[in-house]
Amino acid sequence: MESAIPEHLRTARTRHRRVPDDYAPPYPSFVARHKPSVERVVMAYFGIQTRDASSKAAEQATARIASCLESDGGPTHWDRARYIDEAGFTNVVTVAYWDDRAKFDDWFPAARNGWTGDQRATDGYGRFIEALYPSVEGYETLFSSLGRPEGIAVLADNMSGEIQEHAYWGGMRDRIPLSQTSEMTPAGAARAIRDGSRIRVVPHDNVCLIRSGQDWGDTEASERKMYLEDVEPILREGMDFLRDNGRSIGCYANRYMTVVAPDGTPTEKSYGMSWWKSLAALERWAESHPTHVRIFGAAMKYLSTLGPAAKLRLYHEVTVARADEQFFEYLDCHPQTGMLNAVQTVNAA
Amino acid sequence: MESAIPEHLRTARTRHRRVPDDYAPPYPSFVARHKPSVERVVMAYFGIQTRDASSKAAEQATARIASCLESDGGPTHWDRARYIDEAGFTNVVTVAYWDDRAKFDDWFPAARNGWTGDQRATDGYGRFIEALYPSVEGYETLFSSLGRPEGIAVLADNMSGEIQEHAYWGGMRDRIPLSQTSEMTPAGAARAIRDGSRIRVVPHDNVCLIRSGQDWGDTEASERKMYLEDVEPILREGMDFLRDNGRSIGCYANRYMTVVAPDGTPTEKSYGMSWWKSLAALERWAESHPTHVRIFGAAMKYLSTLGPAAKLRLYHEVTVARADEQFFEYLDCHPQTGMLNAVQTVNAA
Repeated sequence: MESAIPEHLRTARTRHRRVPDDYAPPYPSFVARHKPSVERVVMAYFGIQTRDASSKAAEQATARIASCLESDGGPTHWDRARYIDEAGFTNVVTVAYWDDRAKFDDWFPAARNGWTGDQRATDGYGRFIEALYPSVEGYETLFSSLGRPEGIAVLADNMSGEIQEHAYWGGMRDRIPLSQTSEMTPAGAARAIRDGSRIRVVPHDNVCLIRSGQDWGDTEASERKMYLEDVEPILREGMDFLRDNGRSIGCYANRYMTVVAPDGTPTEKSYGMSWWKSLAALERWAESHPTHVRIFGAAMKYLSTLGPAAKLRLYHEVTVARADEQFFEYLDCHPQTGMLNAVQTVNAA
Repeated sequence: MESAIPEHLRTARTRHRRVPDDYAPPYPSFVARHKPSVERVVMAYFGIQTRDASSKAAEQATARIASCLESDGGPTHWDRARYIDEAGFTNVVTVAYWDDRAKFDDWFPAARNGWTGDQRATDGYGRFIEALYPSVEGYETLFSSLGRPEGIAVLADNMSGEIQEHAYWGGMRDRIPLSQTSEMTPAGAARAIRDGSRIRVVPHDNVCLIRSGQDWGDTEASERKMYLEDVEPILREGMDFLRDNGRSIGCYANRYMTVVAPDGTPTEKSYGMSWWKSLAALERWAESHPTHVRIFGAAMKYLSTLGPAAKLRLYHEVTVARADEQFFEYLDCHPQTGMLNAVQTVNAA
């Protein structure tokens, strides 16, 4: 048993963990371990938004971002997902990961310019960039099993052994190294600056992002049926609640997406990705909102029925970022897109 | 909105609350407020255990303890409950409350002597005393509505306004004033000393007691049906789990009892009363064990269906006590009784 917080990120605490030192979780979970030399990572979401799911222009743009990601200085890992949003638009979201901020900084200006750079352009589809550059103290990961890393964990040096800080409410916070000394409360107010068709969101401190995924590709017969019939519909209800009513509880935006293969066909992986006013708001939803309590109940029943034989893979990554570790830009997107929900838009001076 | 911790018990914190200062609970709850002059209370459970539910001797003993409680120095409030335990014995448990330790100390020796004093006596029924004398820093209460205090709250000066620390996991701990500076971890090992037919349990520090009750006397038609058919059976399952399998998760003993009127007839009130190795063990069960997650889910569904119209009353009191704030004595009881589960019994030297 080891701490989710690696040795080199442990610090003199001013804030306590929620569980006693002899706490033993009832089942194993694992976290990604970077090399100690990694100080900061980048998670950058490049989105396309179109009313016409088969838009040629959008398809070309998607291909363009892919070739840009494969160019010099591009990310170590990226994947792509698709969903239809609350306004009926198809969104294709490509997320790219770096563990070297300087490399990203060299690469990004041209990529940004090609993506959201032309504030007059209207090619019939919206584009957005949502990026975080957290220090390694500012995020955590969690995996239900080894052998198939996802997201930022693909860049990790390896996976941990069984970690202690999980399977209790508050484990998410306790896994983030910053929690040793910080409450990570939101501070300041987000604002938006419009420049032509482009809106830049200047966020507040300690916005929280979760990417929470499931992979049912390895499940067979009865387990697959149980996931698809007993768990997924309840998960979807919760995701829909956050998408449609999340604002009332501090969730700015939620996207429940299907991961797609390079050729655009859907895989047997999905993830929910949501922006929150604070880690605390995410905690409250997870712990006590009927929609997530049902998800938790369904997942618990599933896992306790199947035990270690379960082939479903679950993971997440949760980040809390300072205002200067965030970047949001929306071009020709509808007003319910992502962090646009966090602000009243004003025109540039 | 006010803190569950009254002004005069607030202290410089070394440990933080689990929620941010701007946390707003989704529904109201209340706590009991003693006069600031109250420094310590007593909660003393006097039990009778008999194989024959209609034993005359047990009935006489029950009457005897009642008259003792009504004598000079007796408690300010007491009530009585009944249940059939895991070994098939009928237990009648009378719980008495004082808010003046000195008064209790004067009263108790004669009462104890009359109850568990004669270590040779075998009248065909077992007797036990389980008592805590916590300082007001060492326990908390919670009520879903005003107007009908139960347990230690009957002795309170009044009830609070709407309090902040509830409706999240960790609220129980955050309401206990000691949590401002202490983790309240268990320390030491409980042991038992046999003296004839009587066993005295010398407990460890920070044993935890919860009394958690429900009163459906005011419910009508559809609400009553919903409580009795949708909630109570799930509550009972959880109570049975703790009774039969609680040891595996740190619950020494659980009694799910029906409150009885002075003439012994059942009322429309019940409460679960359980002894725990630690507050942390109680937290873990409540938050993540399937049996309590189901109770929580059923209660949430009930309350969200009925909203403020719900007539069901819920309350609890949770205490964490030092070893010297506890007293346990069992005479002719079966070995699965109460804190006897916490120890290996040894003979007196």
